[in-house]
Amino acid sequence: MSLANLYLKKNEEKRIKNGHLWIYSNEIDTQRSPLASFSAGELVNIVQSTGKTLGVGYINPNNLLCARLLNRSSDQPIDKSFFVHKFNIALSLRQRLFDKPFYRLVYGESDELPGLIVDRFGEHLVVQVTTAGMENFTQEISEALQKVCKPTSILFRNDTNARTAESLDRENRQGFGETPKAITIEENQTAFTIHPHDGQKTGWFYDHRQSRQQINRYVQGKRVLDVFAYIGAFGIQALKHGAEECWSVDISAKALDELEQNAELNHCAERLTCVEGDALTALKQLKQNDERFDVIIVDPPAFIKRKKDHKAGLNAYRKINEAAMRLLSRDGILLSASCSMHLKEHELQDVLRAAGRHLDKRVQIIEQCHQGPDHPIHPAIQETRYIKGFICRVLSA
Amino acid sequence: MSLANLYLKKNEEKRIKNGHLWIYSNEIDTQRSPLASFSAGELVNIVQSTGKTLGVGYINPNNLLCARLLNRSSDQPIDKSFFVHKFNIALSLRQRLFDKPFYRLVYGESDELPGLIVDRFGEHLVVQVTTAGMENFTQEISEALQKVCKPTSILFRNDTNARTAESLDRENRQGFGETPKAITIEENQTAFTIHPHDGQKTGWFYDHRQSRQQINRYVQGKRVLDVFAYIGAFGIQALKHGAEECWSVDISAKALDELEQNAELNHCAERLTCVEGDALTALKQLKQNDERFDVIIVDPPAFIKRKKDHKAGLNAYRKINEAAMRLLSRDGILLSASCSMHLKEHELQDVLRAAGRHLDKRVQIIEQCHQGPDHPIHPAIQETRYIKGFICRVLSA
Repeated sequence: MSLANLYLKKNEEKRIKNGHLWIYSNEIDTQRSPLASFSAGELVNIVQSTGKTLGVGYINPNNLLCARLLNRSSDQPIDKSFFVHKFNIALSLRQRLFDKPFYRLVYGESDELPGLIVDRFGEHLVVQVTTAGMENFTQEISEALQKVCKPTSILFRNDTNARTAESLDRENRQGFGETPKAITIEENQTAFTIHPHDGQKTGWFYDHRQSRQQINRYVQGKRVLDVFAYIGAFGIQALKHGAEECWSVDISAKALDELEQNAELNHCAERLTCVEGDALTALKQLKQNDERFDVIIVDPPAFIKRKKDHKAGLNAYRKINEAAMRLLSRDGILLSASCSMHLKEHELQDVLRAAGRHLDKRVQIIEQCHQGPDHPIHPAIQETRYIKGFICRVLSA
Repeated sequence: MSLANLYLKKNEEKRIKNGHLWIYSNEIDTQRSPLASFSAGELVNIVQSTGKTLGVGYINPNNLLCARLLNRSSDQPIDKSFFVHKFNIALSLRQRLFDKPFYRLVYGESDELPGLIVDRFGEHLVVQVTTAGMENFTQEISEALQKVCKPTSILFRNDTNARTAESLDRENRQGFGETPKAITIEENQTAFTIHPHDGQKTGWFYDHRQSRQQINRYVQGKRVLDVFAYIGAFGIQALKHGAEECWSVDISAKALDELEQNAELNHCAERLTCVEGDALTALKQLKQNDERFDVIIVDPPAFIKRKKDHKAGLNAYRKINEAAMRLLSRDGILLSASCSMHLKEHELQDVLRAAGRHLDKRVQIIEQCHQGPDHPIHPAIQETRYIKGFICRVLSA
């Protein structure tokens, strides 16, 4: 391959050598390799100041996060075979982990494919491409996925926010075959109908599979409250695993409709109560109505989307967890999770400590929750680790 | 109760109010409450500078960690009933979690019983008392445990290092009944014979029950290496869960003898190979012999016992994990754990990152390991969270 060189400033190779894949624009020697000379998504040789090549990556001169490493070897072309190889490595982990073909098949940087997400829903694949560099390989990705997975359909859900920073359009696109409007999947022995074209993200959140498995052990015969319920991943699984009843709270009527259908799919709709509304308001109302729950699940959307939202976000986590604790019956169980990259695990722990103290309750953290093994963590890239959660026992002090 | 007051200096009540249970000697107003006026283990009213009582605790004027809170209410006497109440709360969590009576019943501060550990091995209880304050209640603890658990025997394994800081003698004592030399327990469908009188700690480490469950999912048909094997908790469970063979490394011939007996107990001795010797030396020898393993477990004793050992300890973790990675077959699995309080989770993650980079291997962290739910974490006391571990997939780069 004859690629242009992207030169790093002196000593700026350290992060890459330590295993990271990202290069920021201020680390680039723009004297030797002017950013304006590159087009968005172009493949480049990444070269340290001494002239040694670090590997092949792609660049987007318009983004602060300017380049990402694709391969530490410069000999291998980035083509369909490259993707076939990477997908096979990714697939072999998932096949080792799961009996059935329902999982995140490719998790970006952690599978050494920065900018690419692939969720597998049986014979259907849903792909998210978030960088210009990856966008250039749409065709190769589609062909390689067909070769490795033999899918019936591939859908590109390219309506993610991340594409804006890369100046990419936000538009869904059928990559191969015909993706149906609705697909039925299975997670932890529970069936769900999901909507890949217009559901959130790819239509499903596999990342909490393990947390759901963990909390399912606590629900037998219990009254469960599922806050931010979406289409029922936590709540319906709780019912399926023996919960006496489940109340599901969500602000979206559409999500609750789908949740109800998922309850019917699992023959447990008669034990379900849906509450439409803002979570905090709904929890206060339930408290006024003197409702009590044995197990409460609080898995909000990211309250801290950007660093500057940190203080307000932390306060939001505090409020919602405190409201949940008020609704717990004696010796109740709270699963509190966060998917905010900018909320640290110890901060969430402290939210739970503070909420407990404020209500004069005693909190024991009995389990910790993380993203499942189909969302591996890249040990050099903290950003690949975003889910955190705690299962707490809450006692009167 | 008429107890002496222990006055805190101004603003030193904050940590206690935030939920913590510890008071250090430099936080005490020794003008108002001279340390010399207290005897070791004496019960005291803990009082903030304004005169408000924070609760009842016990003091040891000879220890830097000078006092620990037992109860935020000052009305309730600390007597047998107090312990019965606390034990019932602790027991109800464990009964909810486990089908069989094999677990840590009391985990010190996290069960609001600072200085007390109780492990339950069926009808036998093994107790560790680590503070003078708790030592004064030996009789009440013994009676309360008899009432709550109806055990056949209670053994006080009071030979822990922690007692030295409290100027307590280190001596084991039969508290009730006759504890047999050997007891057979069960963990994750595997039987183990343990030795409560002279095994390490109480004779068994329940804290890694979940990690063992996690790694058991990866061993079917695999060749497993268990480093720091002790009496086989990880290794024998791997064999029981379908490992083709297991090599167990330990420096203690006595531990390996007991490990072999545990293999026989589970009818898998023919698939076991014991290697006696220093772990690092043994791993290098295995490498020289060109041995390869699909799954390797590295769960060393605490390499960082005191803060000042941090650098040397970190290096030791690096060396042993790197030696293990060298022995992994293609696409192998490494479980790397640490029980060092002074090693942070992100430091262990970085050890794995660095070892991988050094060997030109690609590391994916697929699972995180923590102490099990019978070792709950007190959200205000970081010291109650000591186990950390990662299950990694190790690929050639």
